[in-house]
Amino acid sequence: MALLDKALVVFSGGQDSTTCLHWALKQFKEIRALSFDYNQRHKIELEAARTICQNLKIPHHILDFSLFSQIGGNALTDTMPIEGTQKSLPNTFVPGRNLMFLTAAAAYAYSYGINHLVTGVCQTDFSGYPDCRDDTIKALQVAINLGMDSQFVIHTPLMWLNKAESVKLALEVGAMDSLAYSHTCYEGVFPPCGVCPACILRSKGFSEAGILDPLQKRVSLCV
Amino acid sequence: MALLDKALVVFSGGQDSTTCLHWALKQFKEIRALSFDYNQRHKIELEAARTICQNLKIPHHILDFSLFSQIGGNALTDTMPIEGTQKSLPNTFVPGRNLMFLTAAAAYAYSYGINHLVTGVCQTDFSGYPDCRDDTIKALQVAINLGMDSQFVIHTPLMWLNKAESVKLALEVGAMDSLAYSHTCYEGVFPPCGVCPACILRSKGFSEAGILDPLQKRVSLCV
Repeated sequence: MALLDKALVVFSGGQDSTTCLHWALKQFKEIRALSFDYNQRHKIELEAARTICQNLKIPHHILDFSLFSQIGGNALTDTMPIEGTQKSLPNTFVPGRNLMFLTAAAAYAYSYGINHLVTGVCQTDFSGYPDCRDDTIKALQVAINLGMDSQFVIHTPLMWLNKAESVKLALEVGAMDSLAYSHTCYEGVFPPCGVCPACILRSKGFSEAGILDPLQKRVSLCV
Repeated sequence: MALLDKALVVFSGGQDSTTCLHWALKQFKEIRALSFDYNQRHKIELEAARTICQNLKIPHHILDFSLFSQIGGNALTDTMPIEGTQKSLPNTFVPGRNLMFLTAAAAYAYSYGINHLVTGVCQTDFSGYPDCRDDTIKALQVAINLGMDSQFVIHTPLMWLNKAESVKLALEVGAMDSLAYSHTCYEGVFPPCGVCPACILRSKGFSEAGILDPLQKRVSLCV
């Protein structure tokens, strides 16, 4: 397939968006990465994003989204569910956060003449995050294109993959070296804690795919 | 008609949203107003919003949206059309700005258990601002509700009105006292310059409706 033109990858520095970054490198002639600083509990994720983009020589921009702390710092914080994996959501969680991120990404892409957006959202995350589901993303694409008189396509290469399938895709698109630097752990530490829900989910994915997590290899080299 | 429950009014302090604020006072039991500080050229608009809400004893919040200056401060600024009324757009203009505002408003409303959003967008503004058109707003409502698992209704009382009809609606909903404090002039001055495209449009609306602009009355009292 001929390479498409330019894409902007919404890039958190986590496992999924790192896989998407490499997927995009295979699909597009030119890519940029955009991260959001929303006072997330751990800056280590943004540092991972920066390191991975530097290694790959991909232009990377971090947008200040502290806006969320103005919305999320009050009632929302108090009404947060605290059981299950929800426990580890940052306390600035805002409903529809991905709607805001993708709309801001579209405005940013517009200014660079970029028509393709890539995001690692995944339908399997739907229970906790309705803004990750396929219907939401497709409705948002329509709203954005009407609202900006634009022709964005929002690509979601991981939408229907489980974690093991994501890992296999990561291998296929050559993301393993970058995944060594990606951040997943809810505790925000390196080496990762290994016991939080995020670490367990990551570990399960690699294990089911029968692939060694390059992050573990890096741990064994660095610690 | 029985009054609906609670609404959040997206409130700039301009003529249209002031009319909407009073429209909402007639429709809902309880309202809040939300403004956005996006480094707009003239703070006088936000001051107008604050004064009007204080006079009406309506809870009012100003969200810091300086985020836009990070997106709009570069390429977008350079590609701005400079002819016609577009000349007076602030240099932080971002495509799809209303998409962001309404999505942030929905997140804010969510935290207060508010299901109704009111905005003064108008289809007649479509040429310059595709995010003001009816199709955009309806698509956005769907995207927001899917993305937040919510049931927001976005009300747009001015969508199909011309300026003279808006003025008549303002009279009908008792907005005249507030309109004396609303801000319109692109020059950001009081008394308004009277010759910029915004002043001329406002003046034309009142004149066609056969109603004296209360802002003019205030000017004659204050200057």
